[in-house]
Amino acid sequence: MRFEFDLQATDGAARTGVIRTPRGDIRTPAFMPVGTAGTVKAMMPESVRETGADILLGNTYHLMLRPTAERIAALGGLHRFMNWDRPILTDSGGFQVMSLASLRKLSEEGVRFSSHIDGSKHMLTPERSMEIQRQLGSDIVMCFDECPALPAEEKVVAASMQLSMRWAARSKEAFGDRPGHALFGIMQGGVTPALREESAKALIDIGFDGYAVGGLAVGEGQEAMLGVLDYATGFLPTDKPRYLMGVGKPDDIVGAVARGIDMMDCVLPSRSGRTGQAWTRRGAVNLRNARHRDDPRPLDEDCTCPTCRGYSRAYLHHVVKADEIIGSMLLTWHNLHYYQDLMAGLRAAIAGGRLAAFVAEFHALRAEGDIAPL
Amino acid sequence: MRFEFDLQATDGAARTGVIRTPRGDIRTPAFMPVGTAGTVKAMMPESVRETGADILLGNTYHLMLRPTAERIAALGGLHRFMNWDRPILTDSGGFQVMSLASLRKLSEEGVRFSSHIDGSKHMLTPERSMEIQRQLGSDIVMCFDECPALPAEEKVVAASMQLSMRWAARSKEAFGDRPGHALFGIMQGGVTPALREESAKALIDIGFDGYAVGGLAVGEGQEAMLGVLDYATGFLPTDKPRYLMGVGKPDDIVGAVARGIDMMDCVLPSRSGRTGQAWTRRGAVNLRNARHRDDPRPLDEDCTCPTCRGYSRAYLHHVVKADEIIGSMLLTWHNLHYYQDLMAGLRAAIAGGRLAAFVAEFHALRAEGDIAPL
Repeated sequence: MRFEFDLQATDGAARTGVIRTPRGDIRTPAFMPVGTAGTVKAMMPESVRETGADILLGNTYHLMLRPTAERIAALGGLHRFMNWDRPILTDSGGFQVMSLASLRKLSEEGVRFSSHIDGSKHMLTPERSMEIQRQLGSDIVMCFDECPALPAEEKVVAASMQLSMRWAARSKEAFGDRPGHALFGIMQGGVTPALREESAKALIDIGFDGYAVGGLAVGEGQEAMLGVLDYATGFLPTDKPRYLMGVGKPDDIVGAVARGIDMMDCVLPSRSGRTGQAWTRRGAVNLRNARHRDDPRPLDEDCTCPTCRGYSRAYLHHVVKADEIIGSMLLTWHNLHYYQDLMAGLRAAIAGGRLAAFVAEFHALRAEGDIAPL
Repeated sequence: MRFEFDLQATDGAARTGVIRTPRGDIRTPAFMPVGTAGTVKAMMPESVRETGADILLGNTYHLMLRPTAERIAALGGLHRFMNWDRPILTDSGGFQVMSLASLRKLSEEGVRFSSHIDGSKHMLTPERSMEIQRQLGSDIVMCFDECPALPAEEKVVAASMQLSMRWAARSKEAFGDRPGHALFGIMQGGVTPALREESAKALIDIGFDGYAVGGLAVGEGQEAMLGVLDYATGFLPTDKPRYLMGVGKPDDIVGAVARGIDMMDCVLPSRSGRTGQAWTRRGAVNLRNARHRDDPRPLDEDCTCPTCRGYSRAYLHHVVKADEIIGSMLLTWHNLHYYQDLMAGLRAAIAGGRLAAFVAEFHALRAEGDIAPL
């Protein structure tokens, strides 16, 4: 079975469809929970699936350092290792190297760096990244790229983008022909339309199974990010999935989907869940706040997740304050469920040609804010 | 419906039966996982139930301090609060006060102390303990008692035991008549047979729904503990459940059941699970050990828990080393499952009159030790 994208409906710039892979279908627009080190933190993988996730993201940088890609390959690949048999997308490692590793040295060949875990020295290149992602058994492989934090000078952004495009060609060459597996190119170019267009053309010339919009959610702010999407998705082929990397908050997601994005990933719902923060249709809720202490109501009475069906805000407040692991478990589960509910709502709205009404309702409910204290 | 104990079979001193409560049956010998602060740490309550647990233990001391018994009562009781609808046994708070609280002052009336959480001042008496356990909605309430750490001078043990017996009478008086709820007395007396007998007689005179053996697992060692059980269970009525508090390791449990104990509780399986230690039929396994790093085998290939069905030792080693929450989740789940499997085996062996063979096999497999490294 081949990797395919079946675009089923559009509504304005927004699209809905299905990415078909040998390991299962991915309904788009799709939100991919992040399983950094072989686990979506505080979640059993079957619970992640229950939230509605069709695909997870794994981090090449973390896994190459610990337990190592070679070890995971010897153990049968990442799917078996982490007990998740559906699709996995792996990033290239480039972004995490630049944000987490120390003693980085960037060259045409790639990036030398020291591990943030034990200081050991490593080198990532397009070829090595492809090898690692193959060892992990990734279904959707990302090109090795690099990007500067924004704001940055345009010539810095341009040089970085052009290097990433040369690395994209090397990634494609190293990836080879792997039926059923996909390789995605990553558009760079910062907030400069001409650079974005140049990057898109370079990627399309090489030819990929999907196209990511990279270099956003790196400090530029939501308005600038959505501003780039206003034009950048137009540079990409309509018949391939478009992936916005590392995004985002619920309103970022809604904005990105309205601008033609098909896939997203972010640590936010899981990370928030471990710090006592929940995401609901009415915005963010901080469970540490004493106003929840005696509140018998669930986070969201219309939510069907196990957290909202079984637990009061008072309980969540208690376990968060007491640093109980179940606080992280319940809030992560709720947050991931809410994100997947949001994606399902977006897909249905696009399919029904009523995205504008859905987005208006989304913003209206958030503007009301959380339910009033009892 | 009343609280009843239906003793179904004996094998030597060992017994098997069912405690019937309005919230469900408790198969004995029973192991009760500890849900200290309103959660069995790192477990969803439905998962605790899946391991085979019929009843949980809640800690009066922790809950009275946070979130407070009054708050839990206002929220509908501990069962609803923590989303566990089966029986709950609560301890009296006495033991934790002596081991965790600061500025303790013991008197005939009770114990004054300061909270280990915020230093706030509290008083626990038999009457206050009964009130708190009623507010929590406990199904099996424990008398308020106190006990010295062992070894201790006999006159200290005797005076402490006699104080606990006066508190037992006050506990019974304060408990009153609560159909469907049970009050258990707690035998004290250290390692002195005459004191244990005096304590048992005092409790039987008062009359309880069940009898605990207290003051063990406090530093006396396994041999001394089992030595007490050799005679102490004989002082107790045969038609009421016998509960050994705070025990123990798997071999402690087997030894206690062989000596006529019906119920036990211990933090060990859950606490061990959070420190990378697993319990299997072959003894303890430390998942931090590098010998598991490349091992594709489960902890125990005959175990049917989700951890053993879905994950390799290599994965468990990885997530324990990486301090991932799923390490605590998976090992706690396995450990509780193993403990409940052990209880099920003990119950079946007693019912079949083949406990001696079961115990011999239990020790033989442990003597072999963990499976050899690959």
